[in-house]
Amino acid sequence: MPPADRFANSTEFYVRYVETDAMRIVNHAHYISWMEESRSEYARGRGSDYAAFEREGVALAVVELNVNYKSSARYGDRVRVTCWIEELKSRLMKFGYEIHNATTGVLLVTATTRHVCINLETGAAAVIPERWRTAMAK
Amino acid sequence: MPPADRFANSTEFYVRYVETDAMRIVNHAHYISWMEESRSEYARGRGSDYAAFEREGVALAVVELNVNYKSSARYGDRVRVTCWIEELKSRLMKFGYEIHNATTGVLLVTATTRHVCINLETGAAAVIPERWRTAMAK
Amino acid sequence: MPPADRFANSTEFYVRYVETDAMRIVNHAHYISWMEESRSEYARGRGSDYAAFEREGVALAVVELNVNYKSSARYGDRVRVTCWIEELKSRLMKFGYEIHNATTGVLLVTATTRHVCINLETGAAAVIPERWRTAMAK
Amino acid sequence: MPPADRFANSTEFYVRYVETDAMRIVNHAHYISWMEESRSEYARGRGSDYAAFEREGVALAVVELNVNYKSSARYGDRVRVTCWIEELKSRLMKFGYEIHNATTGVLLVTATTRHVCINLETGAAAVIPERWRTAMAK
Repeated sequence: MPPADRFANSTEFYVRYVETDAMRIVNHAHYISWMEESRSEYARGRGSDYAAFEREGVALAVVELNVNYKSSARYGDRVRVTCWIEELKSRLMKFGYEIHNATTGVLLVTATTRHVCINLETGAAAVIPERWRTAMAK
Repeated sequence: MPPADRFANSTEFYVRYVETDAMRIVNHAHYISWMEESRSEYARGRGSDYAAFEREGVALAVVELNVNYKSSARYGDRVRVTCWIEELKSRLMKFGYEIHNATTGVLLVTATTRHVCINLETGAAAVIPERWRTAMAK
Repeated sequence: MPPADRFANSTEFYVRYVETDAMRIVNHAHYISWMEESRSEYARGRGSDYAAFEREGVALAVVELNVNYKSSARYGDRVRVTCWIEELKSRLMKFGYEIHNATTGVLLVTATTRHVCINLETGAAAVIPERWRTAMAK
Repeated sequence: MPPADRFANSTEFYVRYVETDAMRIVNHAHYISWMEESRSEYARGRGSDYAAFEREGVALAVVELNVNYKSSARYGDRVRVTCWIEELKSRLMKFGYEIHNATTGVLLVTATTRHVCINLETGAAAVIPERWRTAMAK
């Protein structure tokens, strides 16, 4: 569960048919993309914008991913992806996630991702711009 | 443009990062999945449900796809996918589509898809269940 | 079928699990990505390289897509994607495709795509570099 | 690195354009699908077949995923995915992975996945069929 002391963003959408596989459930890889979209929504929820972040010449590269799959989702299910910042340092960010079936409330996935800020041109580690760090954490 | 005499469904969402490619625009394959999701929304907009349709033992298999790409979409863009039924026969359906940038109104894609109803168990062509045909066309 | 008077490239690979959907067959959108990969292999088959093409500051943007789905593929099937150049002008290319089950020989898909050459920086239409045009068509 | 005392399977392929994103590198979600395909190849390398496994009415559901991203891959890169069995119990399997750039030898990703065997009809935990367990571990 998101810590009580900080902002958490929740996004809801329907499971797309293309996201299912021959087991008739959502393929495990697609949860990773939902988490990515949830980070985008987090930034929007903070009045910020990840595209603007990249226009400053930096990006957040994923360096670690840990996912626990608890229950499965099916085509047409309404799912809710919640994410929050676990840790925010000058060059690093860690996000926490929970994904639920929005209708039944069943927990589908818990996860974390770690990111490093990199300079888009050189690929070298970079400091997260102060303005963006403040916007994300507030 | 959707014919004036019939229902058309419009769905809006943000472009996901995973949908872009190294040209920094949405990869052309993903529009196909957006169109598929738009058909799902069409059914919901008619008070119906494609998952329920499949639970009756039938499915709509895509047999033809025609897409014209007019302009490109980028990460974070808000897009609007509109679809409507071009043709509805006992065993066949044809959908028409337009995809716009929802913010600027720029037309991105026009497309059509043709579908045949098949029996999910045998794969043989089947008649679209009357109840569903009525729901979709009303 | 590819015209007898020109080079055609064939690529074989296994259907990935993630490419299937809840109908237990390959989702129709993934054939589009297979065709894209087949164009990459075409370039490699000509001793060329699409990545090098883009490093010259130009790209081939897809402007039209026409696909006919004849039969379906399943997880683990070996498929063969064949492509060839239908038309090659100073700013335009058209590819033709056939996709078969490589084991049974059954035809799965026929398709064409049309592309325009664009300047990657400005997005404006551009002339296909002569050297590359020659390499592709030889 | 795969333990010296057991079989490890390596698969090579080219990075597809659709697998890249606007950072001009492979999107982190696609490595998950490469790992899935690598498990398919592992089964083929053991003279077995995951499709046949599922035809026996059971499946291996992913319950945990841990990935460390070390370096990035780009369009057209030749990558090599290596996987092996870390642990094999009556109802559980754990796979280990390494993904390299096959040309330069640079390590891109290390990962593990945990799976439970489930009955495809009921979704309940099931024992991995003995015959298949033997084939995989030999």
